[in-house]
Amino acid sequence: MQRDATVMSKRLAALRAELKRQKLDGFIVPRQDEFQGEYVAAYAERLKWVTGFSGSWGVAVIGRKTAAIFVDGRYTLQVKHEVDGKAFQFHHLMTSPPTEWIGKSFTKGARIGYDPHILSVADAKRYSTACEKAKLKLIPVNHNPIDAIWKDQPPRPASAIVDHPLKYAGQSVAQKLKSIRSSLKEKGADAVIIADPTSVAWAFNLRGNDVPFTPVALCYAMVPATGKAHLFVDGKRLSTALQKSIKTHAACGGANVDGVLTSLGKRIAKVMLDPIAAPDHFRLALQKSGAKVIENPDPCMLPKAMKNKAEQQGARNAQLRDGAALSNFLCWLDDAAASGKLTEGEAARKLLAFRQENKELRDLSFESISAAGPNSALPHYHAHGEGRRLALNSIYLIDSGGQYPDGTTDVTRTVIVGKPSEEMCDRFTRVLKGMIAVSLIQFPEGTTGAHLDALARAALWKVGLDFDHGTGHGIGSYLSVHEGPQRISKTGNAPLKPGMIISNEPGYYKTRYFGIRIENLLLVTETQKLKGGERAMLGFETLTFTPIDRRLIDTKLLTREELHWIDGYHAEVLSKLQSRVSAATKPWLKDACAPFN
Amino acid sequence: MQRDATVMSKRLAALRAELKRQKLDGFIVPRQDEFQGEYVAAYAERLKWVTGFSGSWGVAVIGRKTAAIFVDGRYTLQVKHEVDGKAFQFHHLMTSPPTEWIGKSFTKGARIGYDPHILSVADAKRYSTACEKAKLKLIPVNHNPIDAIWKDQPPRPASAIVDHPLKYAGQSVAQKLKSIRSSLKEKGADAVIIADPTSVAWAFNLRGNDVPFTPVALCYAMVPATGKAHLFVDGKRLSTALQKSIKTHAACGGANVDGVLTSLGKRIAKVMLDPIAAPDHFRLALQKSGAKVIENPDPCMLPKAMKNKAEQQGARNAQLRDGAALSNFLCWLDDAAASGKLTEGEAARKLLAFRQENKELRDLSFESISAAGPNSALPHYHAHGEGRRLALNSIYLIDSGGQYPDGTTDVTRTVIVGKPSEEMCDRFTRVLKGMIAVSLIQFPEGTTGAHLDALARAALWKVGLDFDHGTGHGIGSYLSVHEGPQRISKTGNAPLKPGMIISNEPGYYKTRYFGIRIENLLLVTETQKLKGGERAMLGFETLTFTPIDRRLIDTKLLTREELHWIDGYHAEVLSKLQSRVSAATKPWLKDACAPFN
Repeated sequence: MQRDATVMSKRLAALRAELKRQKLDGFIVPRQDEFQGEYVAAYAERLKWVTGFSGSWGVAVIGRKTAAIFVDGRYTLQVKHEVDGKAFQFHHLMTSPPTEWIGKSFTKGARIGYDPHILSVADAKRYSTACEKAKLKLIPVNHNPIDAIWKDQPPRPASAIVDHPLKYAGQSVAQKLKSIRSSLKEKGADAVIIADPTSVAWAFNLRGNDVPFTPVALCYAMVPATGKAHLFVDGKRLSTALQKSIKTHAACGGANVDGVLTSLGKRIAKVMLDPIAAPDHFRLALQKSGAKVIENPDPCMLPKAMKNKAEQQGARNAQLRDGAALSNFLCWLDDAAASGKLTEGEAARKLLAFRQENKELRDLSFESISAAGPNSALPHYHAHGEGRRLALNSIYLIDSGGQYPDGTTDVTRTVIVGKPSEEMCDRFTRVLKGMIAVSLIQFPEGTTGAHLDALARAALWKVGLDFDHGTGHGIGSYLSVHEGPQRISKTGNAPLKPGMIISNEPGYYKTRYFGIRIENLLLVTETQKLKGGERAMLGFETLTFTPIDRRLIDTKLLTREELHWIDGYHAEVLSKLQSRVSAATKPWLKDACAPFN
Repeated sequence: MQRDATVMSKRLAALRAELKRQKLDGFIVPRQDEFQGEYVAAYAERLKWVTGFSGSWGVAVIGRKTAAIFVDGRYTLQVKHEVDGKAFQFHHLMTSPPTEWIGKSFTKGARIGYDPHILSVADAKRYSTACEKAKLKLIPVNHNPIDAIWKDQPPRPASAIVDHPLKYAGQSVAQKLKSIRSSLKEKGADAVIIADPTSVAWAFNLRGNDVPFTPVALCYAMVPATGKAHLFVDGKRLSTALQKSIKTHAACGGANVDGVLTSLGKRIAKVMLDPIAAPDHFRLALQKSGAKVIENPDPCMLPKAMKNKAEQQGARNAQLRDGAALSNFLCWLDDAAASGKLTEGEAARKLLAFRQENKELRDLSFESISAAGPNSALPHYHAHGEGRRLALNSIYLIDSGGQYPDGTTDVTRTVIVGKPSEEMCDRFTRVLKGMIAVSLIQFPEGTTGAHLDALARAALWKVGLDFDHGTGHGIGSYLSVHEGPQRISKTGNAPLKPGMIISNEPGYYKTRYFGIRIENLLLVTETQKLKGGERAMLGFETLTFTPIDRRLIDTKLLTREELHWIDGYHAEVLSKLQSRVSAATKPWLKDACAPFN
């Protein structure tokens, strides 16, 4: 699906002319936008516009004569379809990173440009170290050369910004700013620039619609230790009510971020920045104006991750709504797939329709992964067009989620169309055993996701199998479907804390045959102190309620405790959802939730 | 058990006079010696000599008028018994460390001395940072002020140094030096100073007897990228055969380490040092002579930890010998403890006698922990004198190990004298479940001890219990009973690799009542590829064979798989040991190994 070759080569030539004009020998083009977000607006699809690559992660480095694009394992095939191999070298982002390639591909003294509004402080530092080593000059550009030549670049989004009501947020803006200010005091900072739009949304109880799937306004904020905060956004975008309520806390104005930063730097001494979230030009502007930059993780990250009681209750409510829609879909699917004609695309649209039956749905939380047969073996699969048909006696995997005003959902179910093979049941049951082990674990304060990851894998490891993604990621509250700092993975070093929501999604993928993933969301809770127990323990409350396909479970592989869990889970699914599903789904739900014992 | 107060106050006064003479305002006195070892020779007991504190870890800082001693949680009670509270403040090593205390206790410009022959590079750096912050001067002393005033300081040990034969070592000195040199090449270093005596012993296939429990000679070595190595030890201490065989590889001479380093530094550019193992004066001497210091982990650490086939077979053989002795002891104990008069001390001596029946025993690998009743609740308990008597219906815990020429052992068994309570059986079974979970796990390359630690704890966590030590530590091959880099603990970040030996010793401790610990040693192995398995997996081979007390196991708490493990383990104990135990032990062993199923 390569784009028109002439168009693409004209763009590349125009960019090279612009580089010459700006006296640059090369330019770094990352996928990310000014907000380091997972989803970017159309205007920020610079990498795609200049290379043709449409993946969600990657970077190109374009020189006057040479160019290369760097993608990870998910995209090594796709990049070859989409990008002109005569114009671009293809490299693996991890094993042959751009920082190395730059050193080998430019001669000493070459001027490598980057857009400091896009590269984060941490990214710019990595490139800077690499350029220093190779004796190249790393140049922050004032005007992005792609923007300079992209005639019909779409406008920046300016969606309406609305209030996230207190009944869902659970905490007022005043309370949140107070907690941010106490972090500032702790670190001796005079102000913090909040660069992550989900943190701005959290801190000011607002939501927007600038990008798909994540209900944020693309903007920054500045919170000083004393005095009014500043929201770097055009005040007119705020709803009238929000304009009024926010006035007490913050001034609005998005036109001149650098100007505000410079005047800020002149007035106060120490400004806190998260080097992973903040674009490098914040650092440059602050340092130029004489302020000291204190690099520190975003102070909103931890309180945003630890959901309060209102957010927890919101999550429970959203999940029930979502579970009912997914159950209606799975019931419908059992019939509809029997024809052998149902496509992946049609299935995904039907699920969206079931979700939309509930008027609370605001958006999906990511593009659904609707994968039939061998496609289910690709953890990040997305169909082009209608995709594959669901064949008899094959696996179908659906990974999807919704955005509701009280919570964000993310759930995966794997079902059999027709009859499963023994191998499918064995693998499904092992994945389920891992999912149950994580669901059941209790653990003391201080335990991290890295400490728990093996529980999700032990039943697979036992027979020489594994899966190549993390076991779980954090989830926002009507915010991003991927949220830090918590995760369950080999490298998940953040302690799990009460109120955090995390996914529990072990899998198994047999390339070219089938894939399995079962995903519930879990809430970290403080457990009741047990009789004879000596220490406080944390545990998980399951938030996701939708049947797990009994036809794929080999009960011989389950322990008594695991059998007890699955029967208990299904009993809860039935009792919570039976009044919420459609009349047609009710008998199906009862069957799907029947106990084994 | 405080020492004679007059003696101790005279020592402190003499030290203060010496500090004055050396123009120092304070001096840092750590427990460790010049080799950072777990066991130190009598001459190096400087902390004990000047404070009275006999624990295995701690540090004092002594000023002209003020002084403080810092110990960890194991020793907070003991330090008060042993050290004069009027002369020394007592602080916790972690929560109120000496680096903080120094900053608060001395005035700007004060001169704080340390012995760079003792403090490691890493330790000296920590003190240096603290002193810089508090504007104090950190002074490396030429002559340790305690040595200057300690009239009857024992001589430095100079035990005979003998060959560690190839049949046990499995690899020649030439092969080992080759592997060290390839590490040097990789890091661009011209030489390495090996500061850890266990690494010197490993690299040169030699063993000594300078300290109890660890069969090393206290010495350093230097290995250049090309040319002869240097052993910093008096050549006369080597056996004649060893003198001959080592000549090809190394020159010997212990008199003037600094001289050799200085001349080395003048000749070559880059010298590798392990900042945790090397004393700071290495760094000082090298830098003074113009060499660049490359800080890098000891290149012997990983190959020493990954036992070769000969060392693995040696470990198996040593363990069987040791298991037979421990079984003879446990059989004897069942009878002997019935009287209610047996003491902890007598039991430990009897176990030593059983071990000594085998002429291969060279030493114990650490001081046995022989703990009756409430004493078993102290994980690091050591009796003073005869200790407590083993009472009826109480727990007895024995943690001990031996040094054999082919391997080092470390094993813990917990047994009931008389009848156990329900609580004891519940806790014992939960500890056992954790021990079994670790024994059974298979895992891919790259998995660390931190990833597996939770497996050992899950059954305790489930009822609100836990234990406050790591689950396992590495073990040497006729070397130190504690060896890195591998360990199973929350912070065990070294990947487990084939050939590593590691302990598996979960526990549970009910303060003032009873304690439980069950410890086997495990060898990391590559598992047979399973039918249908897709990936190579590592696993554990159990090395320790001695019955686990069946009277304390509540089989109702075990899964089928766990029951299968314990019955299988006992069948293996019986088959391996029945020909090795005494005639009197044989029928006992059969009973102790009877299957549940």
